Amino acid sequence: MTIGRDAIGVGLIGAGRIGTSHAQILAQRVPGLRLAVVADPRADVGGALAQRYGARSTTDPYALVTDPEVEAVVIAASSNAHSELIVAAAAAGKPVFCEKPASLTLPDLDAALAAVADAGVTLQVGFNRRFAAGFRAAHDAVAAGAVGTPQLMRSLTRDPGLADPAGVPPWTIFLQTLIHDFDTLLWLNPGAEPVEVYATADALVAPDFKAAGLLDTAVVVITFDNGARAVAEASFSAAYGYDVRAEVFGSAGMVTAGDGARTSMVLRDAGGLHGETARGDVELLGESYVAEFVEFGAAIAAGREPYVNGRDARRALALALACAESVRSNAPVALGSALPVNGRA
Amino acid sequence: MTIGRDAIGVGLIGAGRIGTSHAQILAQRVPGLRLAVVADPRADVGGALAQRYGARSTTDPYALVTDPEVEAVVIAASSNAHSELIVAAAAAGKPVFCEKPASLTLPDLDAALAAVADAGVTLQVGFNRRFAAGFRAAHDAVAAGAVGTPQLMRSLTRDPGLADPAGVPPWTIFLQTLIHDFDTLLWLNPGAEPVEVYATADALVAPDFKAAGLLDTAVVVITFDNGARAVAEASFSAAYGYDVRAEVFGSAGMVTAGDGARTSMVLRDAGGLHGETARGDVELLGESYVAEFVEFGAAIAAGREPYVNGRDARRALALALACAESVRSNAPVALGSALPVNGRA
Amino acid sequence: MTIGRDAIGVGLIGAGRIGTSHAQILAQRVPGLRLAVVADPRADVGGALAQRYGARSTTDPYALVTDPEVEAVVIAASSNAHSELIVAAAAAGKPVFCEKPASLTLPDLDAALAAVADAGVTLQVGFNRRFAAGFRAAHDAVAAGAVGTPQLMRSLTRDPGLADPAGVPPWTIFLQTLIHDFDTLLWLNPGAEPVEVYATADALVAPDFKAAGLLDTAVVVITFDNGARAVAEASFSAAYGYDVRAEVFGSAGMVTAGDGARTSMVLRDAGGLHGETARGDVELLGESYVAEFVEFGAAIAAGREPYVNGRDARRALALALACAESVRSNAPVALGSALPVNGRA
Amino acid sequence: MTIGRDAIGVGLIGAGRIGTSHAQILAQRVPGLRLAVVADPRADVGGALAQRYGARSTTDPYALVTDPEVEAVVIAASSNAHSELIVAAAAAGKPVFCEKPASLTLPDLDAALAAVADAGVTLQVGFNRRFAAGFRAAHDAVAAGAVGTPQLMRSLTRDPGLADPAGVPPWTIFLQTLIHDFDTLLWLNPGAEPVEVYATADALVAPDFKAAGLLDTAVVVITFDNGARAVAEASFSAAYGYDVRAEVFGSAGMVTAGDGARTSMVLRDAGGLHGETARGDVELLGESYVAEFVEFGAAIAAGREPYVNGRDARRALALALACAESVRSNAPVALGSALPVNGRA
Repeated sequence: MTIGRDAIGVGLIGAGRIGTSHAQILAQRVPGLRLAVVADPRADVGGALAQRYGARSTTDPYALVTDPEVEAVVIAASSNAHSELIVAAAAAGKPVFCEKPASLTLPDLDAALAAVADAGVTLQVGFNRRFAAGFRAAHDAVAAGAVGTPQLMRSLTRDPGLADPAGVPPWTIFLQTLIHDFDTLLWLNPGAEPVEVYATADALVAPDFKAAGLLDTAVVVITFDNGARAVAEASFSAAYGYDVRAEVFGSAGMVTAGDGARTSMVLRDAGGLHGETARGDVELLGESYVAEFVEFGAAIAAGREPYVNGRDARRALALALACAESVRSNAPVALGSALPVNGRA
Repeated sequence: MTIGRDAIGVGLIGAGRIGTSHAQILAQRVPGLRLAVVADPRADVGGALAQRYGARSTTDPYALVTDPEVEAVVIAASSNAHSELIVAAAAAGKPVFCEKPASLTLPDLDAALAAVADAGVTLQVGFNRRFAAGFRAAHDAVAAGAVGTPQLMRSLTRDPGLADPAGVPPWTIFLQTLIHDFDTLLWLNPGAEPVEVYATADALVAPDFKAAGLLDTAVVVITFDNGARAVAEASFSAAYGYDVRAEVFGSAGMVTAGDGARTSMVLRDAGGLHGETARGDVELLGESYVAEFVEFGAAIAAGREPYVNGRDARRALALALACAESVRSNAPVALGSALPVNGRA
Repeated sequence: MTIGRDAIGVGLIGAGRIGTSHAQILAQRVPGLRLAVVADPRADVGGALAQRYGARSTTDPYALVTDPEVEAVVIAASSNAHSELIVAAAAAGKPVFCEKPASLTLPDLDAALAAVADAGVTLQVGFNRRFAAGFRAAHDAVAAGAVGTPQLMRSLTRDPGLADPAGVPPWTIFLQTLIHDFDTLLWLNPGAEPVEVYATADALVAPDFKAAGLLDTAVVVITFDNGARAVAEASFSAAYGYDVRAEVFGSAGMVTAGDGARTSMVLRDAGGLHGETARGDVELLGESYVAEFVEFGAAIAAGREPYVNGRDARRALALALACAESVRSNAPVALGSALPVNGRA
Repeated sequence: MTIGRDAIGVGLIGAGRIGTSHAQILAQRVPGLRLAVVADPRADVGGALAQRYGARSTTDPYALVTDPEVEAVVIAASSNAHSELIVAAAAAGKPVFCEKPASLTLPDLDAALAAVADAGVTLQVGFNRRFAAGFRAAHDAVAAGAVGTPQLMRSLTRDPGLADPAGVPPWTIFLQTLIHDFDTLLWLNPGAEPVEVYATADALVAPDFKAAGLLDTAVVVITFDNGARAVAEASFSAAYGYDVRAEVFGSAGMVTAGDGARTSMVLRDAGGLHGETARGDVELLGESYVAEFVEFGAAIAAGREPYVNGRDARRALALALACAESVRSNAPVALGSALPVNGRA
């Protein structure tokens, strides 16, 4: 591993929570990548982050995209800006890593995927769970046939807390949170396509914000064309910490991933047995954020498609959007005709 | 504990798999109960079972019910005979333990509950999972407020194998199997009522029998009036053994029950870590079958309502029937008006 | 399973804690055995226990041994009476089950084993851990070669509490408690013989009783002739409950048994993860006490040696006695010449 | 975190397996440290490692120590060179991190500690297990009184394989491997001092090398002045991978650390339950190697004693040496007079 002159210069758009985490990883932990420029509308925030790693900063993401030192673009901006920034990076002929969701609408995403395809550039999407060791091992077991044909599946996300209910846009639980679980379930049922979705959701954590569109608790059932039924569930407020798990039950067995443990410590006393739970996503899944950028660098270097691509982004987004429709109609939603792939992805 | 002259004489109806298990428990393991008479249409089968424990036998269940030595009736006959036999036992003024489901229809069940109420006799239903130590501990934690208000729940049943697909009546997966999970979920969400059910089911284990009505794989989502969403799932063919688990996630934490382990043995070798899974319900939940009859005997002795009663039977059955309707209509089914309690339960 | 006229009549000597437990098992849970007579010097205690199961009682254990209805003898008396009672039962030609330790000295034990051999009767010793499912599975894995040749072994016993330090005879921790672990380690290293023992012990729970000879905490290292080193450890006061575990590490892997869990329930809340621990031996190992008597009944019926025999009793006792010598001398004790088998066992 | 001009320049002595791992950590993962120079007698090996991270290289460790760009020294050379290199670094007034064991003899270590004390520089020793999250949590629980007074303790190390038995110096199992466990046990029994050691060891993995002094399997019992007995055990060949665990049983409970799991994945199939085991120390304890250097940088920056210091090195070494004596004499070794602290540590 070398971080030197010959490393690919990365431009990072967004210096928020996840952008800050990405900056450290890009600056220090990925073979062949180096942090060159940071863009954030808040000059002081972006500047401070850039300086920490000896990078430059700008308030203009489009200037970053065309900066000659920027050879690859990492997008960690607001979700509603994602697809436009993908288009801009593709226009500049630069490989792109985009945080999930790659877009909030299918037409915008299709436009972005078309731009990427036309430019022939790499697009990777931030489904980091695929790079978490336990999930990867579960996937490999499924892919190797260890559980036979998937029949009953499960993926869940429980976040430790809902900081600001007022600031949560409608459908966030599907578009931002469960989109991870949708990608996980699609990935863990290789070769199968979802044909129907049923979703139910509520504001149980912050009921006062339900009228404003907040949904903080949701359950989704996906029916696949191989007959498998998958359940995805999410909550924005887990008292015990961050909890991400998956389960695939099939004709030959079952595989599970995720245990929510922070450490291996177990205490037994007069009150029974006690252990520690992980309090945040970095505590639980930190290495997966490094591994996804190792993959990004490797895919660029090899000129190949990354492990998570635009098609994956589209399939998960389509499920998220169908969930919103199912909640609105309180009925299962068929996916057959709802998922035309307009782009060239 | 005494099994002697003063123990209550029990008449057992049904000498099949579960009846045989019940016979041994009633004969030997329950304070205050003794096996007096066994009824089974197959004279040789019932006779052999009775003889093993020094009891008498008959081929006529109605003769058993009125037998003077029979002071309490345990029904382990075909499900479609359950409600009539409850009525007969009630008419004879005798306390009844009935295997689940107590009936296959709500009108029949309501008639049975009315008979029981009129006669003032005890009715217990065979939801044994309530007496499994892990489930009981989970319930007690929920009841003590340890997880706060339930928000996301789960209960599942996976059976090791589907012996005879041709012999499985339609809707069995809801009426016979998931009815356990429905009871579990109702029990683990104390004070809440289900308001809507969505169910999806398929024949993935034995697809050739789908046309004949077999459903061997199912997922159900229940919405409760306290907002909680519960998922129940079942499969008739778990390659790794018998698997029964529950999970309650609430505003203050999460509790889980069931681990499917057969023993505490763990082997680590060049292939990784290995353990044993439970192969059958008796292996996994054996003690719960004893405990439910201990409760039956105690309730009779104390002249009190047993821990699992006719109302519990009705609530679980109503959910099972609503699932069938949901599968037929491929739509969520509201429970509000669908569940009139006609009987006096 | 039949408990009737043709079942073997068992005479139980001792109506203390373990005798009471054995009585219930012998009366109700073992095919082919029935409780016929109970002997205890306290007429009221023995009488009450006998009456509970429809048996007779006596204050004279020797009268019990020669009682014509007694076809087999179960000894749960004081340890120092064990060997004499074995001799008496053997003289009466009756098969014997004796609680551990079968004797407190090797000469007495050898005399008892010789009497048993001369009479040609069955002798089983109460090493119940061999019948606990997890331990049995571990043994079977070792016997099948799953861990290769044992190299590092461990067995431990931790009791929940020390009720009466004043009433504990010297060396109890080796003769009464660790003797279970010695048997376990001998059993889990098939074909190997111990060649040296080092033991260290102290009164850490009740230091005021150390002067009176109490040892409540001990660690033992056994060296076997196949090179394996085994550690046995015990404490008389485990705050978290009853804890019994074993571990065999060998050239091809490792197997462990025992997890101290009471139920499968796990609670996660703001304080982390919580579970339940087993509070007593019956809670943790209850089924093993049934299984050892099932074996006793089966061995008698088949006229064969039981799974745990006099030779096992002698090997474990020899280790316990060597531990006492090691503590006295604060040096390892060679076992080679110390273990002449004088008897005919 | 900044890795820039103001970061402390580190000189790394030794480009072997652990030196290579340290180089990457020092170059990229520690706030305030940067890799400046690498020294290795093999010019090509040291040069390649240095070049990978933009550092300089030398074949002379003493030149490295006095290099003006080197502001702190990390020693990962042969163990027999450790103490001399510590003396040299101290003479140059530079803080030192030294891999364990800091020395192979007490006189040499005392000389090194005296040099460090005279120079007033920082000395940290590479007991990385203290920085592993599970072990740290266990220590914190003990320090908080969660288990009361320690009574029975355990620490073990099992390495996946013995690559070259011929190249293993005598007593390596105590001086290089179990020294980790000795430090762990001393650390987990705060305020207590060891008073006696008994050790037994053998060549079970590679018996042909026993005559040459190889010991690949060992068990140690340490008696502390607070009465606690601790068992340390090691094997050089664990078929299932790398296994490091600790257990502290005390008057109020028990805490354990280490589970040997590689991921959270669990597979259940017709053969039971299966998981993955960690195959190497970096897989199991990787983050602890980063954390120990974060501590090193922080201690230097704050001008304070590091969390693991020269006194810790001496206590663990004294135990390792006493083990050798115990094996030679086949007797417990009293530590009282054997551990004079000649140095000024």
